Formats: sequence, structure tokens, C-alpha cells
Amino acid sequence: MNAPSRPAHLAPVIQARDVPQAFLDALKTRFGANCSTVLVVREQHGRDESAFAPVTPPSAVVFAESTQDVSDAVALASQYKVPVIPFGVGSSLEGHLLAVQGGISLDLTRMNKVLSINAEDLTVTVQPGVTRKQVNEEIKSTGLFFPIDPGADATLGGMSATRASGTNAVRYGTMRENVLALEVVTACGEVIRTGTRAKKSSAGYDLTRLFVGSEGTLGVITEVTVRLYPLPEAISAATCSFPSIAAAVQTVIQVIQMGVPIARVELIDHNTVRMVNKHAKLSLREEPMLLMEFHGSPAGVQEQAQTVQEIANEHGGNAFEWATTPEERTRLWAARHNAYFSALQSRPGCRAISTDTCVPISKLADCLLDSIAETDASGLPYFLVGHVGDGNFHFGYLINPEEPREREVAEDLNHKLVSRALRLGGTCTGEHGIGLHKIDFLVTEAGEGAVNMMRTIKKALDPLNIMNPGKIFTL
Amino acid sequence: MNAPSRPAHLAPVIQARDVPQAFLDALKTRFGANCSTVLVVREQHGRDESAFAPVTPPSAVVFAESTQDVSDAVALASQYKVPVIPFGVGSSLEGHLLAVQGGISLDLTRMNKVLSINAEDLTVTVQPGVTRKQVNEEIKSTGLFFPIDPGADATLGGMSATRASGTNAVRYGTMRENVLALEVVTACGEVIRTGTRAKKSSAGYDLTRLFVGSEGTLGVITEVTVRLYPLPEAISAATCSFPSIAAAVQTVIQVIQMGVPIARVELIDHNTVRMVNKHAKLSLREEPMLLMEFHGSPAGVQEQAQTVQEIANEHGGNAFEWATTPEERTRLWAARHNAYFSALQSRPGCRAISTDTCVPISKLADCLLDSIAETDASGLPYFLVGHVGDGNFHFGYLINPEEPREREVAEDLNHKLVSRALRLGGTCTGEHGIGLHKIDFLVTEAGEGAVNMMRTIKKALDPLNIMNPGKIFTL
Repeated sequence: MNAPSRPAHLAPVIQARDVPQAFLDALKTRFGANCSTVLVVREQHGRDESAFAPVTPPSAVVFAESTQDVSDAVALASQYKVPVIPFGVGSSLEGHLLAVQGGISLDLTRMNKVLSINAEDLTVTVQPGVTRKQVNEEIKSTGLFFPIDPGADATLGGMSATRASGTNAVRYGTMRENVLALEVVTACGEVIRTGTRAKKSSAGYDLTRLFVGSEGTLGVITEVTVRLYPLPEAISAATCSFPSIAAAVQTVIQVIQMGVPIARVELIDHNTVRMVNKHAKLSLREEPMLLMEFHGSPAGVQEQAQTVQEIANEHGGNAFEWATTPEERTRLWAARHNAYFSALQSRPGCRAISTDTCVPISKLADCLLDSIAETDASGLPYFLVGHVGDGNFHFGYLINPEEPREREVAEDLNHKLVSRALRLGGTCTGEHGIGLHKIDFLVTEAGEGAVNMMRTIKKALDPLNIMNPGKIFTL
Repeated sequence: MNAPSRPAHLAPVIQARDVPQAFLDALKTRFGANCSTVLVVREQHGRDESAFAPVTPPSAVVFAESTQDVSDAVALASQYKVPVIPFGVGSSLEGHLLAVQGGISLDLTRMNKVLSINAEDLTVTVQPGVTRKQVNEEIKSTGLFFPIDPGADATLGGMSATRASGTNAVRYGTMRENVLALEVVTACGEVIRTGTRAKKSSAGYDLTRLFVGSEGTLGVITEVTVRLYPLPEAISAATCSFPSIAAAVQTVIQVIQMGVPIARVELIDHNTVRMVNKHAKLSLREEPMLLMEFHGSPAGVQEQAQTVQEIANEHGGNAFEWATTPEERTRLWAARHNAYFSALQSRPGCRAISTDTCVPISKLADCLLDSIAETDASGLPYFLVGHVGDGNFHFGYLINPEEPREREVAEDLNHKLVSRALRLGGTCTGEHGIGLHKIDFLVTEAGEGAVNMMRTIKKALDPLNIMNPGKIFTL
């Protein structure tokens, strides 16, 4: 497998299409005040958390309040052949929301109702603008929770669209495993459902999984049914420092191979611990650190933690710390929660460019160690955190956005990292998606044949290419 | 949601297409003795375990020995516009293998090599003709196992194609959750890969999940990478009899809602216990029975079993029996293992027509009790087994194949059962697939819009409609 010979896009390809005034007039007539053409609103909807330079914002923002609104907006867009970019909280990381072919932004945050809680079936159905914190707040009284936590308080529509996951995925899976069914508005404005509330089904093509991870390119998600889990009887947290990244990673590999049902296991490197200590005025050992969480019965949790502690000891782990109360757990995990902001603070005015490779767990040490050496050699400041139980980790390269050279160095490092991950049997993106940024990497990873199959599906389901065009693949 | 007004197909719709002699000659030239036109071989490949009357068998059977063989066979079929029906062990249940539009059968059982065992990553890659028992045999020394057990010793290619599951799915998921990546030969003979060995990925459309459950209608699966699990440190089994189906089901509902990670929980009704007692000369209480299995650490298993026993007691469960040694476990589960054959023996010469609905677990009692009453009222003999932890169960209607009236009664009962399951938010098929038998039910369940989307995908990826045509939907 050969990596692409040029670095990933440093600037998105712009192919802005015509947005007829008649279309904008029709939107205004249909949506009134819920259709905005104010520049600041459009600008806010034309960017995401990626490091791409701003492009021309969408021509209008429609605030949908119902599936009917979405259907009508898409039907009008279809009639005038205008691109539509679904928008949640704007926390995506790979340029998903940039209007590179022009068009309108469809803001779904007002569709924020929890529609039905089926506690006895461990499912909940929500509108796409409901965020993960909101859903957990609204189901609190049921004794259940929704485990997927990508960091940002993203919407469930957005999380479905990018196949998000995060710290709990090692135990509870990703959006791929946890979305049971969707309601979707297709590219011609038709409303369909992709599944039932049955836990499993062999009824035809898995349209649910086709839309999960489709990044808004096949239609607009207007309802999401997800699985819930009983709040664990007991939760305990632990942290442990290690003499080296290799020792920490070997511990994780062995924990996973032994089948310990660990709920979270995060790595942060010594460099990031140092940033956290400085920013949050802590005095953690400035060594690579694993942060763990165990869910289960009181006895089960103790058993898991014991096993992990024994494995950690074998690899030179020290300062194993424990916590069972919520306050103590929060204190222990402070390093992880503070990592991102501490890193940004460590270089005022910087931007973080996040990587997202994921490799088979046996290759994790190889992939990490070589990439750390490479990054250290570059001189670029960075932080490193990882959902290492899944083989997924993120470098955050801290670049000065005014220095094009730094961005180039970061892109070059990312390029080498992705190439290494692919050589080791991994993927260029564990949870952030392709967006604009990884279009070339996807071809290297999946091959022209597979990407052509994706294009064929896209063309069949969105023949006018109006659904978030220019993302995932060129078309 | 309205159920279809006519019973599901009693006879398949036949639209046999022309199979040119030049095509058969070309196959013979390319495959020699690996292409058979002997009638008995063709007949054996033109049927499955469904109760459909035989149709004209395929015109030839090609025994593929490599991906290249598959690719060449499909490319030839594409050139001559001839249908291709992939074939594993022939254990599918809904008419998947019948050559209703003519064409050839592509037998994959000679592609039966385990290609690579990655024990440290808990994955294995196999050719599609490897069966689930074979894979477990070949990985035995690693301390890992592949949990999915649909009953039959099916091939992993076939299990992927029908999105199979079975008794362990309540804990380990179905083929949907356990296939990491596939190699696929597309409808034009191209070879693509649908994923990597990374545990999670957000890299573009989920082609893996699109092919899992596509029933051979989009291409031929030529390699399967699945997840493995560490063999549990401890396994224990238990059985418990209940005064009523309702009591047994309420026990299961509560076990699932409490989040007990039970590995298997199967229901058999009193009627089936009676058949087993007679056939296997056992003296089990002739009452509804739950058969359970717990996986984990010795302490964890004991804790789970204790919790379940307490819940069972509350619902009048009695004769709770325990087993930890493999021999004792096998003895306890004898009723489940013997259910199918005992039922067939109870009415010599009969055929079983199996239902396959799956409902949200809170609706399980409603769905089961009404359907049992209905089936009892019909006078048709039957057995009843269920993967009740997932809300999935199977009636086996024992019909005399010489009595068309009995088949009609069975189809009518199935029709009412499916309608009930759909009303309760469930699916017409938990694990068997659509095949020929449930084409109408799929429309009722998913809606015309969703089925049209499936058709659109099919037409885009298989424009000549040569891949197992006539299955899942009419086209």
C-alpha cells in the first residue's frame, strides 16, 4: 500500500456553484425568520474546528424545527440544484462544514427534543440536535445512560454522521454499534426510516450503518434511536504512571488481550502531563500516564482493577492511584480533562491540528513510538492523548496559524503518521471522519475500487450531488 | 403500519433468464472439472433449508478455489448477463439459494482456509467457506474463540451474507458487530476490500456493513475478518423451569434491564420440552424452561448467576439447576440441543417452517403470548425456541408437506405473527434474512421509500442484476 505522494490538502478545493436568487427567495418565503442571510450567521456556519482557512460562507442558513422543515428545505435545494450542508454544534474536525461548493447550511440545533425514552428496552429516540449531555440529563431518572463521549458536547445527529466514539468506546462501542435506527430525509426530500427498535435484524441492506458515518453526503438525519445502558452499580477510576510510553502501551495491550472489560483507558504522554501540571497547578509525575475507569458490580470492578494493577506492576507502573467517589474520580481524571486546554495555553495563540489514526492493538507501540520520535525531531510542540484500548490516539500539533511553515510541518508529520498506520493495518481516522482533510488518505487506505463503490452509491442516492458535496471523496 | 394483505409467497416467482451455451462452454474451458453440470450436483445447489418446493436448478455449479476463480466466474457471468448465486453449506432458511431467475451456483466451500490468526489483536481472517466450527477448531490453541453460533455449522461467508447471529448474540452481538472487514468480488468481477483490521474507523461509507446482510445480491464475499474473544476464565450453565411463559419472559426482561452480561438465555416452551423428553428419553419438568450460560471470572460468573436466580425465584422459577463442568453443561443444555430433531421426530415425515421475528424486549411477552394462543388455536403442531435475551424467537410449525392446507395455515400464522411483531416495533427477521420468503414483509416493515433506496443501491452496484437476483426485493 503506497501513501499518497503529496501532503493532504493544505487548502480545500473550491468549486462554488451558483445559488440562484429565486432559490433564496423561495427559502425566505417558506422559512421566514428561520432563514438567515446575515453574514455573521453564515460565517459561523461555514467553519468547524479544523485548521482550514475560512472559505466563502454558505449563502443562507435555514434553522429547521421539524422533519417537514428539513424535507422542504432539501426539496427546494434539489429543485434548484443547490448544495445543503447539515449543521449541528460545529465541532467536527476535518472540514466537514465548509461550503466548498457553495450552497446553504441546514442548522438542526432547534430540533432538540427527546422524543421517546423506552427505559424498559434500553433505547431512546431523539431529534438530531439533541446533544449527548442533554440526552444523559433527560434520562437521568431512568438509571440508564448513553455512553458515547467524543469530548465535545456534540449532537447525536452529528455524532451519527461522523461515526463518533471517544473514551468509552473500548467497552461500549462507537455510534456504529449503538445507533439502532434513523429517520432520514433523502436527497430528494423524501422521509424514510432505516430500522426498527428491535435489537437485531436481518431485514435487507443495513441502511442505518450506511448513513452512520456518511458525513451528510447521502441525506439529512432527522431522528436517531440509540441504545442505552444501565448505570453501573459501581464505578472506580485509577491512574498509573509508567517509565515509558512502551511500558504503558504494553500494559494496555495485555489488559485488552486478557479480555478485562475496562470501560475507559486513556494515555497521555509526559509532555502533556507537564502542560497540565503547569496550567492546572497540579503536581502529577511527569511521566506517561494511563487513566482508567472500571464499570460493574462492586466485586467485579475490584477484580478488574486488581488484574490491571498486577499487569501494570509487571511493566514498571508506579503511583497507582484509586478512586471510587465521583469527586475523587474527577480529581484523578483532571489531567485528561485538562489536556486539551492546557496544551493550547502552553503556546498562546496557537491552533491544534489533531491526528486520528487507529491501528490493531498489537501495532500500537510500534506506531506510537516511531511517531513520537519523528514529532520530537521536528521541533513542533504537541500534546498526545489516546483511546489506547482501541488502538486510537491523537497527536495535537500546536501550530502558530500565522506561520505557514508550521502547518506544513504538521501536515507532513500527519502524512507520515497515517502512512505508518496504514502500513500497520490501521485506518487514517478512528473517529473524526474524512471530511475534506483525508480525501487522499481514504483512497490510499481503501483503494480506488472501494472509493469508486462509495462514489457509485453517492451518485445513485444523490444524483444532483447536493448533499454536502466535496466531502469524503472528490466528485 | 399495515401488514401485507396477502400471505407471504407460497411459491416463488420464477423469471428464469437465458443461460447461453457459449457461457457454459466458457465456464467449462476456464474451470474444467471445477464446473459441473451434473443434475444431482445442480439440484443439491438449487435448494436450501426453506420449505419452498424445488424450482429448476441452476444450469451449472462452479467450485471456486480462489478469489481469482470467483472474479473470473463473475466476470464471465457479467459478460453473458447470467445470474450468479453464491453457495456455502446450503443452510439458509428463506429461499436464498433458489435459482428463481436461472443462472449458476458459485460454490465457495473449497475456499476453506484460515488465512491469518492475529491472536494478539483478537482477529482472524478466513476464506468464505470456513465454517464456524472449523474456525474455532483452528484457533483453539490461542485461548480465543469466535462466539457466533447460528445453530447450523454454517460458513463465515454465508453467515456474513445473512447477518447471522444465534444463542451468543445477547452478549457478543451478531455478524453486524463482529465482522471487521471483507474482501468482496463486485458484480463486474473487481476485487475490493471494505475495511482494515483497526477496531474502529470513520473512513467513509461502511461498505462492510453494507455487504453484511446483503444476501449475495451485491457481490461475492471472498474473505472475512472477524473479531475473536478470550475464552472466558469460567463458564457456568443453568436451567430453570417456570409456571408460565410469561414468568420466564419477565425474568429475562428483568435480567437484561439490570445489565447482567448473560452470555446465552434461551427459552423453550412446555410443548417442546415434552417432545425432547420423548425423543431423548429425559424426564425434564414439562414446563417452559430457560437455559442460560454465564461467562466471566469465577467470581463474576457466580455473581451473575446469583442475581439471575434471585430474579427467577421472584417469578416462580423452580428447579434451578447449575453446572460448571463441560459435561454437566452439555447435559443441562440437552433440551435445547435436541429441540429441533425431537420436534421433527414427533411427527415423522413433517417439515418445519421456522418463524424469526424479533421485538423490543419489553414487548416480548405480548408478542409471544398472543402468538402462542393463536398457534394453539390453529391445531398445527409446533415447537418454540427463542434467543429471548434479544427479543428473538422461532416457532417451528411442523407441517405435512403433502398437505397444502397445512402450509397455508402455517403461512397464515407466520403472517399474523410478523404483523404483530411489526406493530410492536420489531422486525420480520432477527437473523434468517429476507430471501424470497419475506419480500412483502420487508416492504411493510421498512416502507416503500427505504426498500426503493435498497433497490437503487442494488441497481447502481449490480446494473445487470446478476447477483442472486430476485432476493430481498423484487427487481
